Amino acid sequence: LISVGIIGGTGYTGKYLIKFLQKHKNVYAFDVYGKNNAGKKLYDLFPSFQGFVENKTVLPVNDISFEHQIYFVSLPHGESMNLIPALLNKNKKVIDLGGDFRLDDKELYDKWYGFEHKFPEYLKLKQYGLADINGSLLKEADFIANPGCYPTSVLLGLYPLIKNFNDQVKNISVVSYSGTSGAGKKARADLLFSEMFGNVKAYSVNKHRHQPEIEQELKKIGFNGDLSFTTHLLPVERGIYSTITVYLENEADKDEIISEYEKQYNESEFIRLRKTPPELKWVVETNYCDINVSVRNNSVIITSALDNLIKGAAGQAVQNLNNIYGWNSSTGLK
Amino acid sequence: LISVGIIGGTGYTGKYLIKFLQKHKNVYAFDVYGKNNAGKKLYDLFPSFQGFVENKTVLPVNDISFEHQIYFVSLPHGESMNLIPALLNKNKKVIDLGGDFRLDDKELYDKWYGFEHKFPEYLKLKQYGLADINGSLLKEADFIANPGCYPTSVLLGLYPLIKNFNDQVKNISVVSYSGTSGAGKKARADLLFSEMFGNVKAYSVNKHRHQPEIEQELKKIGFNGDLSFTTHLLPVERGIYSTITVYLENEADKDEIISEYEKQYNESEFIRLRKTPPELKWVVETNYCDINVSVRNNSVIITSALDNLIKGAAGQAVQNLNNIYGWNSSTGLK
Amino acid sequence: LISVGIIGGTGYTGKYLIKFLQKHKNVYAFDVYGKNNAGKKLYDLFPSFQGFVENKTVLPVNDISFEHQIYFVSLPHGESMNLIPALLNKNKKVIDLGGDFRLDDKELYDKWYGFEHKFPEYLKLKQYGLADINGSLLKEADFIANPGCYPTSVLLGLYPLIKNFNDQVKNISVVSYSGTSGAGKKARADLLFSEMFGNVKAYSVNKHRHQPEIEQELKKIGFNGDLSFTTHLLPVERGIYSTITVYLENEADKDEIISEYEKQYNESEFIRLRKTPPELKWVVETNYCDINVSVRNNSVIITSALDNLIKGAAGQAVQNLNNIYGWNSSTGLK
Amino acid sequence: LISVGIIGGTGYTGKYLIKFLQKHKNVYAFDVYGKNNAGKKLYDLFPSFQGFVENKTVLPVNDISFEHQIYFVSLPHGESMNLIPALLNKNKKVIDLGGDFRLDDKELYDKWYGFEHKFPEYLKLKQYGLADINGSLLKEADFIANPGCYPTSVLLGLYPLIKNFNDQVKNISVVSYSGTSGAGKKARADLLFSEMFGNVKAYSVNKHRHQPEIEQELKKIGFNGDLSFTTHLLPVERGIYSTITVYLENEADKDEIISEYEKQYNESEFIRLRKTPPELKWVVETNYCDINVSVRNNSVIITSALDNLIKGAAGQAVQNLNNIYGWNSSTGLK
Repeated sequence: LISVGIIGGTGYTGKYLIKFLQKHKNVYAFDVYGKNNAGKKLYDLFPSFQGFVENKTVLPVNDISFEHQIYFVSLPHGESMNLIPALLNKNKKVIDLGGDFRLDDKELYDKWYGFEHKFPEYLKLKQYGLADINGSLLKEADFIANPGCYPTSVLLGLYPLIKNFNDQVKNISVVSYSGTSGAGKKARADLLFSEMFGNVKAYSVNKHRHQPEIEQELKKIGFNGDLSFTTHLLPVERGIYSTITVYLENEADKDEIISEYEKQYNESEFIRLRKTPPELKWVVETNYCDINVSVRNNSVIITSALDNLIKGAAGQAVQNLNNIYGWNSSTGLK
Repeated sequence: LISVGIIGGTGYTGKYLIKFLQKHKNVYAFDVYGKNNAGKKLYDLFPSFQGFVENKTVLPVNDISFEHQIYFVSLPHGESMNLIPALLNKNKKVIDLGGDFRLDDKELYDKWYGFEHKFPEYLKLKQYGLADINGSLLKEADFIANPGCYPTSVLLGLYPLIKNFNDQVKNISVVSYSGTSGAGKKARADLLFSEMFGNVKAYSVNKHRHQPEIEQELKKIGFNGDLSFTTHLLPVERGIYSTITVYLENEADKDEIISEYEKQYNESEFIRLRKTPPELKWVVETNYCDINVSVRNNSVIITSALDNLIKGAAGQAVQNLNNIYGWNSSTGLK
Repeated sequence: LISVGIIGGTGYTGKYLIKFLQKHKNVYAFDVYGKNNAGKKLYDLFPSFQGFVENKTVLPVNDISFEHQIYFVSLPHGESMNLIPALLNKNKKVIDLGGDFRLDDKELYDKWYGFEHKFPEYLKLKQYGLADINGSLLKEADFIANPGCYPTSVLLGLYPLIKNFNDQVKNISVVSYSGTSGAGKKARADLLFSEMFGNVKAYSVNKHRHQPEIEQELKKIGFNGDLSFTTHLLPVERGIYSTITVYLENEADKDEIISEYEKQYNESEFIRLRKTPPELKWVVETNYCDINVSVRNNSVIITSALDNLIKGAAGQAVQNLNNIYGWNSSTGLK
Repeated sequence: LISVGIIGGTGYTGKYLIKFLQKHKNVYAFDVYGKNNAGKKLYDLFPSFQGFVENKTVLPVNDISFEHQIYFVSLPHGESMNLIPALLNKNKKVIDLGGDFRLDDKELYDKWYGFEHKFPEYLKLKQYGLADINGSLLKEADFIANPGCYPTSVLLGLYPLIKNFNDQVKNISVVSYSGTSGAGKKARADLLFSEMFGNVKAYSVNKHRHQPEIEQELKKIGFNGDLSFTTHLLPVERGIYSTITVYLENEADKDEIISEYEKQYNESEFIRLRKTPPELKWVVETNYCDINVSVRNNSVIITSALDNLIKGAAGQAVQNLNNIYGWNSSTGLK
């Protein structure tokens, strides 16, 4: 049994961390730390929690006790960077849900995140926690960078194809749509209900920070070619839907490709291969990623759906907790 | 032909004022004044305007020229109060879309709006512009307080009943639902798409500023009894739906009641009496108010639907412009 | 440990019955019976079930084995009437989620449901299962009529007021809004996404079948006065929001009223009294009913929110299962 | 001045045809023909029309008088095929909003539409009415096949690129999202509000009938390479959003490409080139197609937004009417 600290636990992601960890059978205690909401009660922040989550008081983020074994950090970009080295230096385990340590190369932070990384030596200490792929490598890990929501959806969709047919790939186009909760709970006029109702828009075209993350991880399995990545906002609260088009050098063999997906995900409790393109609703409020692969001539079209707050954030983080301690992958998640 | 000034024209209501006045055949010129958006181009504020509205620059609100005959004022509560006396003193006509002059009684501002009214002497100068009821009285008016969105929906729904059967009325319960655009375009975390998606909530229960406005206008036609008014937010961008339950002393005569509604609204271009409860969609993007009256024993249930930004704001204001100058009621509105 | 049959288990309500009963620790086995979907697999009907619900085959409704101890019946109006007497005659326990046995008086079926009841003698055998009120009376019950979704929301909201202050009540106006899932999964052009998107409408005004059900239950605690009930469709999938206005003879004493609500619901695990009007989202996907009571002069405004498929159907039915067998009220529901 | 017949005018597309043609200054009369709705009044079919559209009776589709100069045909696939030859043989002009004559090659109907074309000789008589591209060629046309909604969005987005840089193009991936109104007004369980609320899904992957239409038209300007086309349903009523990724052989010159778009659409009243990706809301309820072009290395990402019922159907059809008679392109459309 362990106890955990949830740092930055009062946003949308934090809410699900609390929900999952509160009922996790191997977690006997937890504390929630927040910046602006320190001193508030969980029931006031999350009225839906009343009656089934403990009504804890949020503790101030700048006054963290080091009593827990492991800390989940869910802070805005640039903030977890300043906190995590101290936690690691006290021999605490850390699962970081933000982007500050996901990239391996310091230079990419200048280019894509627009800041100079202050602790580049920690970049190589983290393990990239794509739970359904490298879960077994994460056992006893000390520091996990939890993948971004879009990269989770794209990498799970592409992994078996790239791993087995990379030499055939000409280029890749990724078109992803996300619900608005991905942008967090901060007041913004462009994310008002009145603005997004009935609306759709592409954003951050060719500038999204998840692009280098996707490229970095695909490079590790051999892909170094052209990949485009276009993100859109969807008028739903929850979910990511990625449509990935891969052009191959030659006519594709559908059965051979599908069979590699089956081999890869056979044992994965949270990947469901589908015979038809998934519906977003099948995965919302779950830790599943649903994937369909369709083939026509020399093109492969992969559709991949997940819940951005769960599989794309808090759910995968808890899965990584289970991976670290060698617990069953789905503990606390079903 | 006249020219008009639109003060505070860069919010949701202002957008429709511009749209209607730009194509109004008796308006030869207009200027748009704004606070935070002064200096910006209309196309940058309202990209959907590109190509069919003139790409004017927004002028600063604190530097109004007095060259126009009439000014539409659409500013936050407490701000139009400071501006309108100056306009009237320059012999300008004013249609105020805010609440600062709607109430007749200074005391009510203390109680319901929470501020002391600085120019109470102007309260009695205004005419209350419920366009479909007192339109003919507004001819050559100098100063019109445009009704609130909820009061428009409730007063149009109740008017023929109270006017003709007031002595029968025991009490009235109004339950109104509004789309989120009624709350304006300001960044607020509680109005984020992520918060309001799939959501509904009552708000300002027994505290809504539109309650004294409704009571004031009903009192003018004799009703001084119990009226409750409960407002809710609806997960749609546009529209108000009011359900009004009136208990009578005796069994109601449906035909007699309906016939008074028909008499009242026979000539009203923008009131459509319906045989079934209206759907919100029938009125969105129009200046119509659709009304149904249903009777059971001694209760009358009135459903009333309108577009809060049009019939509940900009559309009714343009209708009032037409009333002032004696133009056809629907000029610029269809 | 018991085994259960779910008859009519392939609609929206059935889906939640399966979900709850599959993980209910005292249910060791279940079968699902359907009409049009007999022969299909649960994963094909409910793709979101894949991986955590058993992939059973739906059995034909007209070939029910009588091997289970208890049957949940979720069939269209008029169909459960023909089935339930046979189950009861075989000494099976029954929880009926439809309306065929909710009313006590045969005549009301002619008037409100439009059919002649074929088994009126069974009307008096059922117990009305408003779980949070008469839970303790349901122990060892054989035949429970599970309340309608609207009545649950209205009765829970009104119960402590009527029970304690009935002599003070002048009249009651109920305005309820429901998500579209209340209308079921049958193809209907008026319930297409394209029709209901951004839409709201009142329906069945003065004709809704839940009106006599509400009146019947309130009469049992003394209320025999005027009650109006107006139902609306809301553009959300899930949830009911009821706004109940009660006029009293005299000025109401807020503290006294609230204190009766607290007394009544103190021990109720699934009723949460709120200091502000509830938001629909607080209850969606839960078995909670959230209630707020607000008082002004001689009026009491009660807002009540619940999930129509859970607290208003499947969840309350499982709560009633627990009531019958004396299990903890929330078994299988959290 | 002309008079027009609207055949199949009681669906979503028909509604907009009526709206536009009713106020078109060069149309002095119109009739509406329907199948299932013959005999009904327009106000009963479209309650929102009350008060500003003539309350005509829908005439039976199988009893068309040949008194009008031109007929708009908006019937399901396979039905307009049987009707249009008769109209043409009577020397009537026809604008077909369905797909029955859009393709040039009879064989493609077998393959993609699944029926044998009965009047293949008429396929070559039609002109493909992509109004903003070939408008000038449509003058005095007798028979126009109005483009599909998706092809309009994709072809307008790709045209200047393919026309000027076709030799550079390696392959094209199109990912399109459509609101539910594209599927029409027929009752379908999978398009219920309850099903599509908060949902997204890819559909007809590699099987969508608009794919050969897009390929056919691109071939006319030289493109004969790889194009993938993946369509999705969006939880909004209106609008199409296409994201088109084009890989080029070499690094792209952004200014050169943008300049060709500007040249092409300089004079097009209904194409708005945008400096940022368009929002769907900018075009809903208008006849505009908004386009943005973004370039990174050797990839070009084009985003294109339009209203499927207007620019993708009724609006473009009216634009084609204007093209035929040489009237101003926007007559009746603004």
